[in-house]
Amino acid sequence: MSKLTDVPKRILIGRALRSDRLGETLLPKRIALPVFASDPLSSVAYAPGEVLLVLSIAGVSAYHFSPWIAVAVVVLMFTVVASYRQNVHAYPSGGGDYEVATTNLGSRAGLTVASALLVDYVLTVAVSIASGIENLGSAVPFVVQHKVLCAVAVIVLLTLMNLRGVKESGKLFAIPTYVFVGGVFIMIVWGAVRGLVLGDTMRAPTADFHIKAEHQGLAGFALVFLLLRAFSSGCAALTGVEAISNGVPAFRKPKSKNAATTLAMMGLLAVTMFCGIIALAMSTNVRMAENPATDLLRGGRPLGSGYVQNPVISQVAEAVFGKGSFLFVLLAAATALVLFLAANTAYNGFPLLGSILAQDRYLPRQLHTRGDRLAFSNGIVLLAGAATLLTFIYGADSTRLIQLYIVGVFVSFTLSQTGMVRHWNRHLAVEQDPAVRRRMVRSRAINAFGAFFTGLVLVVVLVTKFTHGAWVALLGMCLFYATMTAIRKHYDGVAEELSAPEEPDDDMVRPSRVHSVVLISKIHRPTLRALAYARLMRSDTLEALTVNVDPAETKALREEWERRGIDVPLKVLDSPYREITRPVIEYVKGLRKESPRDAVSVIIPEYVVGHWYEHLLHNQSALRLKGRLLFTPGVMVTSVPYQLASSEVAKQRARKRQEWSAPGAVRRGPAAVRPKEPSATKD
Amino acid sequence: MSKLTDVPKRILIGRALRSDRLGETLLPKRIALPVFASDPLSSVAYAPGEVLLVLSIAGVSAYHFSPWIAVAVVVLMFTVVASYRQNVHAYPSGGGDYEVATTNLGSRAGLTVASALLVDYVLTVAVSIASGIENLGSAVPFVVQHKVLCAVAVIVLLTLMNLRGVKESGKLFAIPTYVFVGGVFIMIVWGAVRGLVLGDTMRAPTADFHIKAEHQGLAGFALVFLLLRAFSSGCAALTGVEAISNGVPAFRKPKSKNAATTLAMMGLLAVTMFCGIIALAMSTNVRMAENPATDLLRGGRPLGSGYVQNPVISQVAEAVFGKGSFLFVLLAAATALVLFLAANTAYNGFPLLGSILAQDRYLPRQLHTRGDRLAFSNGIVLLAGAATLLTFIYGADSTRLIQLYIVGVFVSFTLSQTGMVRHWNRHLAVEQDPAVRRRMVRSRAINAFGAFFTGLVLVVVLVTKFTHGAWVALLGMCLFYATMTAIRKHYDGVAEELSAPEEPDDDMVRPSRVHSVVLISKIHRPTLRALAYARLMRSDTLEALTVNVDPAETKALREEWERRGIDVPLKVLDSPYREITRPVIEYVKGLRKESPRDAVSVIIPEYVVGHWYEHLLHNQSALRLKGRLLFTPGVMVTSVPYQLASSEVAKQRARKRQEWSAPGAVRRGPAAVRPKEPSATKD
Repeated sequence: MSKLTDVPKRILIGRALRSDRLGETLLPKRIALPVFASDPLSSVAYAPGEVLLVLSIAGVSAYHFSPWIAVAVVVLMFTVVASYRQNVHAYPSGGGDYEVATTNLGSRAGLTVASALLVDYVLTVAVSIASGIENLGSAVPFVVQHKVLCAVAVIVLLTLMNLRGVKESGKLFAIPTYVFVGGVFIMIVWGAVRGLVLGDTMRAPTADFHIKAEHQGLAGFALVFLLLRAFSSGCAALTGVEAISNGVPAFRKPKSKNAATTLAMMGLLAVTMFCGIIALAMSTNVRMAENPATDLLRGGRPLGSGYVQNPVISQVAEAVFGKGSFLFVLLAAATALVLFLAANTAYNGFPLLGSILAQDRYLPRQLHTRGDRLAFSNGIVLLAGAATLLTFIYGADSTRLIQLYIVGVFVSFTLSQTGMVRHWNRHLAVEQDPAVRRRMVRSRAINAFGAFFTGLVLVVVLVTKFTHGAWVALLGMCLFYATMTAIRKHYDGVAEELSAPEEPDDDMVRPSRVHSVVLISKIHRPTLRALAYARLMRSDTLEALTVNVDPAETKALREEWERRGIDVPLKVLDSPYREITRPVIEYVKGLRKESPRDAVSVIIPEYVVGHWYEHLLHNQSALRLKGRLLFTPGVMVTSVPYQLASSEVAKQRARKRQEWSAPGAVRRGPAAVRPKEPSATKD
Repeated sequence: MSKLTDVPKRILIGRALRSDRLGETLLPKRIALPVFASDPLSSVAYAPGEVLLVLSIAGVSAYHFSPWIAVAVVVLMFTVVASYRQNVHAYPSGGGDYEVATTNLGSRAGLTVASALLVDYVLTVAVSIASGIENLGSAVPFVVQHKVLCAVAVIVLLTLMNLRGVKESGKLFAIPTYVFVGGVFIMIVWGAVRGLVLGDTMRAPTADFHIKAEHQGLAGFALVFLLLRAFSSGCAALTGVEAISNGVPAFRKPKSKNAATTLAMMGLLAVTMFCGIIALAMSTNVRMAENPATDLLRGGRPLGSGYVQNPVISQVAEAVFGKGSFLFVLLAAATALVLFLAANTAYNGFPLLGSILAQDRYLPRQLHTRGDRLAFSNGIVLLAGAATLLTFIYGADSTRLIQLYIVGVFVSFTLSQTGMVRHWNRHLAVEQDPAVRRRMVRSRAINAFGAFFTGLVLVVVLVTKFTHGAWVALLGMCLFYATMTAIRKHYDGVAEELSAPEEPDDDMVRPSRVHSVVLISKIHRPTLRALAYARLMRSDTLEALTVNVDPAETKALREEWERRGIDVPLKVLDSPYREITRPVIEYVKGLRKESPRDAVSVIIPEYVVGHWYEHLLHNQSALRLKGRLLFTPGVMVTSVPYQLASSEVAKQRARKRQEWSAPGAVRRGPAAVRPKEPSATKD
């Protein structure tokens, strides 16, 4: 039998050797950075603008606070990065926030984190695509004029790509991400050179506009509140930082160290770009307003609803590079592409988190199977549907969508860091080595500060954004939480009902005899095969059963039965209402009533067809009958399939489906690395 | 075993005795008339108006032709009724036009008739409901102001009623139909008395309007064409006349004679009402126009788009009874109700015809089963969907919908009557008795004239209405025809592929041994039951199979297996990709490859749950695996169900579904009457 048990290995080896997969199995840092960081890096495309937008409420003078807000974001970013570097070392299996929270704070905290992350994946798609469209629109106006349409088109495109199973490659991420990062740095450096060295005056296209402050001369508490709101918006730059902590297994060895380094690089790049863009925006006099149509004035008059407010990054690029220049267009394209890639990461993360939740029985079990196309499809379609809904409701307006964002991220940050503090406490309780203890105490301090700071930000975000849309995100989280709790409760109930007692009870009494019944509609190959198989099974009694729906047909059947000399007795059930299911069910029930200790085996010949529409034309009675028989106790239902020529089509399709590669394979690392203990095979 | 074979009889008898059904089993003429005639009788609510509408194109002077058109319709009605009286005598089984055409003219003619009838059922729903809404609107203006909405609401209501399975009773039809017929006759008589005896001047609400003729002074060919078009529209009064010929088995004995008498009564009532309404419309100076907004003038000025043109019958009722009087409102309500009943008859006819077509393998076989809820549901939903579509497209405007109507009816009339001529020819060729021969020759003459006249009308309808909308109906017929031909072709191909040879060939070789495999995920009641059943089957080899998705779980399973001392060997398949389906399929294929002459029996424990959402949570892997295994040759797949407590819900639901009574039961007559030969049961 050794040949047979090799089959899974052969599949594995066959796969592992496929040349196009070889290079991808483990990621070097230079590839890991773009693979994991497209989300946080791309957020510098919208975060600076959101800060200015909020500040503009208090008039252009409030723009002077923007460097301070940038500093706060930088401090927060370093705190979060430092905290997650601890996670990466402590959980090299790539458990992520859900695992950290569940392990250390219990299942409720874990489920809260999971709900928050699920909501945030949806928002990552909606926000990133909306912002991508806005950036693209600064170069291609058509796109902004049909914002919702284009955003939905991108969602549909990403969805189809992921449903079909595009093979992700590191390069796919690397090129646009590096072009984007490089472009932004060139812009910052060139802007600094032009402004500081050459003494050029660079003016953003909106530099001449005036802002009509909604609240002129804000001070005291109101001003603090506004600054906190601006800070909350700036925190959008932090979304996706946790991605690396989920992907440690995909790194080259030493995994944790490489992941931690990549995390630090990402943080550094992100804050540099964020601050650089803010600085350029200040020096080129970018003017943004929450309601540009009414609050932006040119020559004392509002701009009106026809005005399209371009993102800060594109306004700055226009000021530095010049409108329509090659670098301007390249940066706009790279920005949009990186944002779409960021949206794509949610397409990987959402089903993957779903599969982990399914493993813990918070979601339908079938989502658990990794690399199963159907499982991923469900997640992908759910994600795309929710994102499309949000895009429609909020008109693909990134500014309005960002109000919903961030809540989830910070719920997850805070709980994860709190969990890490517990983690160190537990380890400190048993650890003796003073050197290790010192490191643990330091880690705990970092995580404790991280938990405190992110918790504080969470409160700020909730307070400043609740009425602006954060309540929608909270509602979404509650829905996910309630659904998953209900599913878990159901599974637990079923498991209890199914659990087998140690001693056989009444329910487990072994039936004494088996009575086989072969269902016959007419004599053809499938029925003859079913009869042959039924004979093989050597049950205690065997009979053929037909339902008399049309007396003429039944008569013909009986004659042919005798002519062919089939040695199984044929029983005919009357069915005055031309029903098939009911007479059979009643007959089977009758058999059971006569001898309750016996089992009944119902054997149904089926023919297997290939096209979906052929299914509508065949086997419907058999299917319904099977469905009903399953509710009858003491019955087993056997299908004896007969493959028609057209079934080959479906077989090919199924095979193709098997070779489908799930999205996100690169980020998750090779599957073979996962199992925590060697698998054993019994021969 | 006699007890068991009684079950179907007990069901039958138990049903037949149910008191609420007793009275309905066979229909007396006074009930049969309203049951079958609501469609043709209700059409007098719109047919007269359509005649005046078309005539108005040539100005009000053309109204003088309306009595002549009425005469033509009357002659046609008598011809059709006389013809169908022959059908009823010749085909007492209630075969209807489809059977007559198929038997006598071949399957293509039959299929053409069937396509035409299916299209006409859809139009019956759309036209009747649109007209019902318009009639109701003459008393309740709100309804006309939201025409499409109300029409769709009625369609939805009828659909839900029919899906749920309302028990039709003769009374349901009788009361509104007799109120409607009585009301119209009272109106005609009272109108005649007021006009001729009392000398009152009755004036319709539109009597003072002037008609702006679209083509003033039409003459010659153009006038003839217009008159033919008006006649075509008047022919709407004939739709549904064929219904009685489908329902002969529902009549009391002597069935054919009673059906023929009812047919004659119906024809007489319809033409009297039709002519009476036309006469009253002429004497009260009703003014109708195709485009009332522009072509109806008051004081020389068009009425504008706000004007709602009430149906002729309601205008006449207003003139005779007075607006808002009790009789006026009663008649409007009865008219609307009868029209909705007429629409409801299509809900019965459409799935019934579908079931006959399914018997002849032109439609999916599962539609064949009579009284099967699912089969009817499909038909009902298809009908409702098509009718809703038409209602939307044509804005629930009965005048525009009627352009599509009638084509189908006359296709069916013509082919049916032609078939009857063939029928008599065939019988005359063998009949010797001169008295019988004389009757046959007379019948043939009637049918020949009927075929000629209806064929002529068909040509007229096609010529005058093709561009006005008849092409849509023809397109629909072609679609039905093509679909049904394709389905039949598919079934024939499959039947050929499946047909069993007299001598066993390679494919029929009986497998020599059977290798049983029980799939195990964990040890619980369902698996223990499956193992017990598998042991009962005494196959040649038996083993348990599990897929190693999670090594820890697999280890625990193996330990419990040994601890419980289960005497079936447990085989573990590795699955590095956490797949379940593929390793099992590969393993089964391997077994088959090793010993190709053996069969493999795969036994799958399943637990049966009750709610639909529970299905999403369970057995999905099992279902998919079963689906894939069916494509693997030499395999039989056995489900061993374990019923969870919640499955009771689904069982109750299934039982309730069984007791559902299909719509149209009254019209079809009792089921037990149908079988043409006594059914035999072998014990």
